[in-house]
Amino acid sequence: MPKFKLTLAYDGAAYHGWQSQPSGRGVQDRVEAALARLFASAPRLESSSRTDAGVHALGMVAHFEVPPQEYRMAARRLALAINSGLPDDIRVRSAVRVPAGFHARFDACGKQYRYLIWNHPVMHPLLRHRAWHVPQALDLTAMRAAAAHFTGRNDFLAFTSSCPGVLTDSERTLTRCEIQRRGPEWTIVIEGDAFLYKMCRAIVGTLVHVGRGLSAPGDIPAILASRDRRAAGTNAPAHGLVLWKVNYPRGNRGEPH
Amino acid sequence: MPKFKLTLAYDGAAYHGWQSQPSGRGVQDRVEAALARLFASAPRLESSSRTDAGVHALGMVAHFEVPPQEYRMAARRLALAINSGLPDDIRVRSAVRVPAGFHARFDACGKQYRYLIWNHPVMHPLLRHRAWHVPQALDLTAMRAAAAHFTGRNDFLAFTSSCPGVLTDSERTLTRCEIQRRGPEWTIVIEGDAFLYKMCRAIVGTLVHVGRGLSAPGDIPAILASRDRRAAGTNAPAHGLVLWKVNYPRGNRGEPH
Repeated sequence: MPKFKLTLAYDGAAYHGWQSQPSGRGVQDRVEAALARLFASAPRLESSSRTDAGVHALGMVAHFEVPPQEYRMAARRLALAINSGLPDDIRVRSAVRVPAGFHARFDACGKQYRYLIWNHPVMHPLLRHRAWHVPQALDLTAMRAAAAHFTGRNDFLAFTSSCPGVLTDSERTLTRCEIQRRGPEWTIVIEGDAFLYKMCRAIVGTLVHVGRGLSAPGDIPAILASRDRRAAGTNAPAHGLVLWKVNYPRGNRGEPH
Repeated sequence: MPKFKLTLAYDGAAYHGWQSQPSGRGVQDRVEAALARLFASAPRLESSSRTDAGVHALGMVAHFEVPPQEYRMAARRLALAINSGLPDDIRVRSAVRVPAGFHARFDACGKQYRYLIWNHPVMHPLLRHRAWHVPQALDLTAMRAAAAHFTGRNDFLAFTSSCPGVLTDSERTLTRCEIQRRGPEWTIVIEGDAFLYKMCRAIVGTLVHVGRGLSAPGDIPAILASRDRRAAGTNAPAHGLVLWKVNYPRGNRGEPH
């Protein structure tokens, strides 16, 4: 069956996360409803990831298939057609046909998240739904030293909200954990092979803990080794987090063909 | 009487502009309500400018006075105190005491506005309330050539929505009219001594007209000379515009003292 890869952007504020919900308030529900307007078979989406309630995305990836007899539209018109059935807080950025073997989740080899912090005593009113307001002074040098401890292969069990015992393997590899600063606007870039449940928000919360002087950069290895969620900082709020992009191996990116 | 200068930021989406409204839906109404919680005299604000419904601000300036017997608070605590009585889409960025002769409107010697355009076939869902979505290709070189015609002293009667005959003087001086581009995010920076009603939005609408090839950069002098609103492009929508800052002469900026 013809298979398509969608790259999606959304404002997560109004949704209970990506995943389809009985309430219908998942982003996935809205995109599947738009697909059902175009294809009688009402295709289901397989996504690269889930995002939590309130988390945004600029580069979510999902695929779907349609029976050949329903596939009458040029792929280059597909994004436009789906967007016409979506609310304006969800947009298909691109839709491309992919080989039958492509899988949005299993083929993903990495993901990048970005977390936005507004570090100033007064919040920026135009960023209030997109950035975490941290009014206290933050020590950038300490935070960068702490961030360096997260890169490489680590057991992130202390940085996930998964129920203990559910995870069989809590080791993940981060290739980037960097803090970029432009005045009061701080962006934490986290890239890795895969992520545990709420892992990014626990890392950011812990980095801010360090930035405020509540713990030291040198504490991070012990927190990782503890494998105890209570040892790390509290989760940063959802509305600062963006699923920035999902990486696929070269030759399997769903380029138009 | 002790006089204070406020620098304010707000998301204009929920308001009928800056100016106090019978409906109470002006930004000014909300700030005056917050002041009335702090000062029994319920001070009125004098602002540098008005902004239209839906227009945002990062650097609106306004002043107010309080009777000496009501002035018990350190100026450095004032911004925090006012913010505690404001909704989160309006923030006082700073509050400083100024000399009795200071006037937010009469002393202002210039203003900068910034207009944000998202120039891509697909809108960015996180910018949908802050940027004008222009899906068509835009010719940056032509737009920059057009923008150059606006700088200097010009009669802007063709670029205002004021009723004809109301204005006695429609000459204004622009010191900057520049287009900055970062991928699909285009920012038009317009700075000048003073602005006519809806002048920025008419300039931006006309620049986009040129960018789309609907008129030529060389048409701008004739449009200015026409003094006819119908000769210029339609107004760009309000939600892309931000009052960025208001300039005051050196020595009269309301620095803390």
